[in-house]
Amino acid sequence: MTLPASSAAQGPASLPMVVPDDGLPDRVTIYEVGPRDGLQNEKAVVPLDVKAAFVRRLVAAGLPVVEATSFVHPRWVPQLADAADLVEALREGPRFEHPVLVPNERGLDRALEAGCSHVAVFASATETFAAKNLNSDLDAQMAMFEPVVRRAREAGADVRAYVSMCFGDPWEGPVDPDVVVRVGCDLLELGAVQLSLGDTIGVATAGQVGDLVRRFGAARVGPERLALHFHDTYGQALANVHAGLQAGVTTFDASAGGLGGCPYAQSATGNLATEDLVWFLTGLGIEHGVDLDALVATSSWMAEQLGKPPASAVVRALS
Amino acid sequence: MTLPASSAAQGPASLPMVVPDDGLPDRVTIYEVGPRDGLQNEKAVVPLDVKAAFVRRLVAAGLPVVEATSFVHPRWVPQLADAADLVEALREGPRFEHPVLVPNERGLDRALEAGCSHVAVFASATETFAAKNLNSDLDAQMAMFEPVVRRAREAGADVRAYVSMCFGDPWEGPVDPDVVVRVGCDLLELGAVQLSLGDTIGVATAGQVGDLVRRFGAARVGPERLALHFHDTYGQALANVHAGLQAGVTTFDASAGGLGGCPYAQSATGNLATEDLVWFLTGLGIEHGVDLDALVATSSWMAEQLGKPPASAVVRALS
Repeated sequence: MTLPASSAAQGPASLPMVVPDDGLPDRVTIYEVGPRDGLQNEKAVVPLDVKAAFVRRLVAAGLPVVEATSFVHPRWVPQLADAADLVEALREGPRFEHPVLVPNERGLDRALEAGCSHVAVFASATETFAAKNLNSDLDAQMAMFEPVVRRAREAGADVRAYVSMCFGDPWEGPVDPDVVVRVGCDLLELGAVQLSLGDTIGVATAGQVGDLVRRFGAARVGPERLALHFHDTYGQALANVHAGLQAGVTTFDASAGGLGGCPYAQSATGNLATEDLVWFLTGLGIEHGVDLDALVATSSWMAEQLGKPPASAVVRALS
Repeated sequence: MTLPASSAAQGPASLPMVVPDDGLPDRVTIYEVGPRDGLQNEKAVVPLDVKAAFVRRLVAAGLPVVEATSFVHPRWVPQLADAADLVEALREGPRFEHPVLVPNERGLDRALEAGCSHVAVFASATETFAAKNLNSDLDAQMAMFEPVVRRAREAGADVRAYVSMCFGDPWEGPVDPDVVVRVGCDLLELGAVQLSLGDTIGVATAGQVGDLVRRFGAARVGPERLALHFHDTYGQALANVHAGLQAGVTTFDASAGGLGGCPYAQSATGNLATEDLVWFLTGLGIEHGVDLDALVATSSWMAEQLGKPPASAVVRALS
């Protein structure tokens, strides 16, 4: 068959047909994690001015929440060693409104010094990952996060809590969803305002997603307090978003251009690409506020900075 | 964070957790199109013995239907010029049970001579694609297919009808779903036993899928007569399968290793990868009969033959 040079030749060029589906939310919040979760998993260290431009372009493209960086110790994530400088470069008033990750109290100290008013902590749903990533365990991690959450709130900052390995763990295999609910509820009890439930290794399928959201509901945690954070390692991320939407979740994490994992690496850990999510939501007539062309241009530019092809199907198709 | 070398380290290595979802079918038929739709869109011409081994390995991996080749004129698709030889090499009795594509009566003649008992025709849902791909139009294509379908049935063969550009067209943009239903109903009336509704350029989103299946239902064509054929150009294929399953469809086309399009080309037209579909169905507890390890090994081997990386996320994650 003969197709035009780019299938994007269909006009208007970068928008799908809109056919809403019954029972889905009217509006979704995309929580952009590219500058933090994306760049911390890229080999290349991106210069400060490029990072600042990246965040500014994402905001200009309409993304309502852009997690900017992580106040992790530079020894562990040298890619984000310039967290304080980035916040300084981007801050427009006394308080910095973009969320930042804080792994512990020392990270919180640095974030508060820099004027941050939205912080995120990163917990584990499995013992093995808690041991390996946090040098802790499921109970002890709560003791570690308690002063972080309490002191953040005392300082007027709100707190998101990531829960990683919610759907599968590379060492333990299947993860008990009731343990995920327990970890999540503990974090909410400490004072977190939102949980981001992460499929850190991308193994989840759609049935698991609805099941986990319903288990949180049974524990009196409604979908409005949940975000879903999918990785596309096994190609399942958007199908999982579909299941999450149907379960009532309205906040989804995504990474511009699929930053954060090489699509050809053995343990590809790429985040769901924001553009693929935007295409999906647009087609369903769900409001998200993002200008897809501006976002694609941003991710294409960032891919050039990193010297690698973008990991987003939409970016590849449209650029 | 520190992850094991392969996230596939979770045991058992190549299977997701199984969490069924209410209301989905218990069993799905995967209609494998890699040897035909995949290879016809690859630049490389694959030797006959490799093609034969590919089909045999797909069958051995448990795929219940493997479309083997196309009796298209070699001038248009030189990659499949050896259709008759491939059928001869694979045939185990007087009749050849794997389906083959026949674009017209001349193709049907060749397929029947070769002993084929399952053929497929390839129609268009849009005027522009009918003109460009078939040198025809929406009405005239039916006159072209009428003798093909009639003579195939007289010879004891059954007929599948592909309908291409069902969800978007690269020249026309949005496609009227009622025209798709009319084209599909005309093909069934000619005597086709199954329609495969194709998102040839991969632009469809989930709402369109359920909507189109419901429109066929309103025209008294139930989901048991439909197959869905998605391309992953915009990353939407599996979310669309999810919507199709929820609408009651139980046959899905897929291509081993995502054969049929380069994931990095501008107009990437890759088919949904069979492995990604298998992972999804397995996680939902939906029977499909496929041995994922054997399939991944087959697609990895085929990618080596073609000298390019596989376009399946699951194959990349597991191999």
